[in-house]
Amino acid sequence: MDLLKQRILKDGKVLDGDILKVDSFINHQIDPLLAFETGREFYQRFQNTHTQIDKILTIETSGIAFALCAGYHFNVPVVFAKKHAGRNMSLDVYQGKVYSYTKRTEYTISIAKQFLSPGENILVIDDFLANGQAVLGLLDIARQACANLSGVGIVIEKGFQPGGKMLRSQGVRVESLVVIDSLKDNNISFREA
Amino acid sequence: MDLLKQRILKDGKVLDGDILKVDSFINHQIDPLLAFETGREFYQRFQNTHTQIDKILTIETSGIAFALCAGYHFNVPVVFAKKHAGRNMSLDVYQGKVYSYTKRTEYTISIAKQFLSPGENILVIDDFLANGQAVLGLLDIARQACANLSGVGIVIEKGFQPGGKMLRSQGVRVESLVVIDSLKDNNISFREA
Repeated sequence: MDLLKQRILKDGKVLDGDILKVDSFINHQIDPLLAFETGREFYQRFQNTHTQIDKILTIETSGIAFALCAGYHFNVPVVFAKKHAGRNMSLDVYQGKVYSYTKRTEYTISIAKQFLSPGENILVIDDFLANGQAVLGLLDIARQACANLSGVGIVIEKGFQPGGKMLRSQGVRVESLVVIDSLKDNNISFREA
Repeated sequence: MDLLKQRILKDGKVLDGDILKVDSFINHQIDPLLAFETGREFYQRFQNTHTQIDKILTIETSGIAFALCAGYHFNVPVVFAKKHAGRNMSLDVYQGKVYSYTKRTEYTISIAKQFLSPGENILVIDDFLANGQAVLGLLDIARQACANLSGVGIVIEKGFQPGGKMLRSQGVRVESLVVIDSLKDNNISFREA
């Protein structure tokens, strides 16, 4: 997605440790028009799936904006998995474990059972794909609900980390709007489509 | 906003303790078309403010979808305050304290300083207004940044809790898409516009 590449080159910052900072338009400050365009692009890439998408699934926090914009174009509900169960949350939940490499700790994500039904076709959307652990947690929950996974849509995939390869090797259709192959020497290189 | 009232009557659930559960379309599962319409409504209510809106401010998690949709209609950036600072977060942040009545604990919210500038006109958007503590935390941060508060837009105000009155008594313009005056006897009564 060219619009997104240009924006990453303009406003993204590379930090030590292979970190790409995009908090001025993706995950702290959000550009709503760009988010809306990513939703349109996810729709274009996944609308020709042989099955209709019934629901968008994501995980709080920074996946929500992009999942919402995809849901708008598909005209289907968006469900976000919670990392922190609130007082009002239903106790009748599916739970998945997510290992965070950055925080070196495992956390639990939850989705109320009423919002995932057997046979529903699920599109998972997230802002970043690196090690793929968050997506695995969502896929585990979808499996528990006997929902079908139609695919995974990612705004920015770090192609030099193992998540994308791992998911694709399991037969998951992963569509990343941009794939970054390297951040070496503060230089952002994109994988050619 | 009639569309929202009808949806609350159809899908909202009243629980003991004056709790209105709207997690099937607002804060766990989200209806993206409804969210988009709330954004349009916020735009219509605030576009005639004598000052132009420069930025939308909200707080993670469940404010994000509605802030994003408002930001889309205003065509301005959306910034969400973080409750849980990640590893990659800038250390140069404004911080505010928020007291949670439901959890009976105080937590800290943070916004990177680079995303709030002196003189910017800020519209605060959130999904719920009850005691108003989250909004107060955001207003404190806006004040630290010397930004101007143009108003506060709320999807659902619990009119029987003190937040709305408290903010309006401070001269804050609060626009709530619906105000609920009572949840007594499992009956949802809306305040007439």
